[in-house]
Amino acid sequence: MTARIDRLRVSLEEPLLVTNPTNVYYLFGFKSSNAALLVEPDGVRLFADFRYAEAARAVDGVRFEETRRALLWDLAERLSGRIGFEADYMSYSAWETLGSGSVEPVPRRGLVERLRAVKEEHELAAIRRACEITDRMFERLTEERFVGRSEREVAWTIEQLFREEGADRVAFESIVASGPNSARPHARATAREIRAGETLVIDTGCTVDAYSSDYTRTFMTGSTDGVVKEAYAVVLAAQEAGLEAIRAGIAGVDADAAARGVIDATPFAGMFGHGLGHGLGLEIHEAPRMSTESTDTLARGNVVTVEPGVYLEGRAGIRIEDNVVVTNAGVENFTGFRKDLITVG
Amino acid sequence: MTARIDRLRVSLEEPLLVTNPTNVYYLFGFKSSNAALLVEPDGVRLFADFRYAEAARAVDGVRFEETRRALLWDLAERLSGRIGFEADYMSYSAWETLGSGSVEPVPRRGLVERLRAVKEEHELAAIRRACEITDRMFERLTEERFVGRSEREVAWTIEQLFREEGADRVAFESIVASGPNSARPHARATAREIRAGETLVIDTGCTVDAYSSDYTRTFMTGSTDGVVKEAYAVVLAAQEAGLEAIRAGIAGVDADAAARGVIDATPFAGMFGHGLGHGLGLEIHEAPRMSTESTDTLARGNVVTVEPGVYLEGRAGIRIEDNVVVTNAGVENFTGFRKDLITVG
Repeated sequence: MTARIDRLRVSLEEPLLVTNPTNVYYLFGFKSSNAALLVEPDGVRLFADFRYAEAARAVDGVRFEETRRALLWDLAERLSGRIGFEADYMSYSAWETLGSGSVEPVPRRGLVERLRAVKEEHELAAIRRACEITDRMFERLTEERFVGRSEREVAWTIEQLFREEGADRVAFESIVASGPNSARPHARATAREIRAGETLVIDTGCTVDAYSSDYTRTFMTGSTDGVVKEAYAVVLAAQEAGLEAIRAGIAGVDADAAARGVIDATPFAGMFGHGLGHGLGLEIHEAPRMSTESTDTLARGNVVTVEPGVYLEGRAGIRIEDNVVVTNAGVENFTGFRKDLITVG
Repeated sequence: MTARIDRLRVSLEEPLLVTNPTNVYYLFGFKSSNAALLVEPDGVRLFADFRYAEAARAVDGVRFEETRRALLWDLAERLSGRIGFEADYMSYSAWETLGSGSVEPVPRRGLVERLRAVKEEHELAAIRRACEITDRMFERLTEERFVGRSEREVAWTIEQLFREEGADRVAFESIVASGPNSARPHARATAREIRAGETLVIDTGCTVDAYSSDYTRTFMTGSTDGVVKEAYAVVLAAQEAGLEAIRAGIAGVDADAAARGVIDATPFAGMFGHGLGHGLGLEIHEAPRMSTESTDTLARGNVVTVEPGVYLEGRAGIRIEDNVVVTNAGVENFTGFRKDLITVG
């Protein structure tokens, strides 16, 4: 953890108040919904209320100071001078409170997130384990029947299989989207019964030692029309183009364009309505981003999702998503589960 | 939903931009991590990006406008004039973006949360169902052995029992805290093996139709020392005093004091280091609060947790938590599971 604080300190122009719980956890392994770290040149202070006091006292490398539940009011009284705060995370109200005394709050962005985006070996190992478990989950899941079961039942099966295979938990609410529901990129699992001859998008992941996987596979339930098969081939080709393009140094917008260009050269042009992918780690969506709006550049050690899709409104959707680590030469793909078009019963 | 918008409108001095996803869901049943509602005198506009477009078009009573992923930048360009925003939720960065064009953002707080705090009949019905399922889960759970199993294994059993009993999902990461871990009010489930002669705090809940329960029970694993038994009796008496005091019109700080006074009149004075309870609904922690710092007053139709505790640092903890709806005469307790001191193997 000390190495992380050292790396953080070199980017600071003033003491930084870290209030995003994921960032607090990243820096000191301390989990709390109501804590703050003040990173100063000569030390780190950890603020938390009574409920977290015993755990906070056990944290190495910080000086613990117990606060009231109204943490920000407490900090406004205790602190003074220029203090950086996490402007993308801190609410307007919290900022107002922090500045109500003699603190001069300075908005800062992405300082800890930038460190988190470059994974260390033990972080890569945890994500790799999560991916191996996800591979095994998908292998077992596709041995079962889908037709006649509800999307929700399948989502619960996924959760149970993840646990049986050694995951700590499912990483997020699984998307199990059948037929017309699959045309919605952010569908959830509903009570809808899966029928024969549909597309079925499953977007899920598991968490191991605080790090997560995030895969998508699209299946067919019985025979389907030619357009869907064609769309599947296009999405797969787009993903391959994206995987081919990604390497340390490429701009997120260019990686996105490499995949998007494949889709936009087909009759499915304009039907890939989201970005190519996002960083993956302690959070399911973190830096860097690959999209038409991205300003990020990929670096060695980034772990990203690569997930093009085509959505035929009201009818069907296809998305294929892998998890890869960015290297100087290209990517190492953590995802082992097959990507050919599978028909499940 | 129209009734909720009507109730909201009477409290508005200018159009309100609702960006908290739970509030968006409450008002129109629309789930998205990147959406906004603009509540104006003559109508409601719903903003969301492509990924949510199909679902957004299906929402009744709003005019849908598709935006880029960078939602706030889009709104800053489209909107103008004085617009209220949810200051407790919107980040400093988002506020800065919103005000970068011709919008004059006006900080507003708790407007939708205040409506959410007073439950309608169908909301009470969902919470009641979640509580009934939690009762059955605890009944089945306490038929099992705890000693020799890890806290995490017990947490997973809880999740499975919730599903078997008809819950949509576990409402939050269960606390299963044994022995010294139970002295931490916000412990989680760890790999620690539960031993004989300890206290075991289980704080869990389930979600049904988007509404949740949130119970805590404390068990003994075999015989334990007299101090722990004494503390249990004190916490139970404190809870009864809290339940007795709560009714529509009481201040949150007074309800808290009713329970706290019982503990503070014993040798365990000062060992109840958190508030008496919080509102419960679409979120696990919502308005109103009952604590020494609360400025809320309870109203008919509030659903709150009542959860005093005593924490013996490094050694043991006791917490007992029920879920009740506030009435004019007192409370109706949704919690059926027994509260006498149970010894489990």
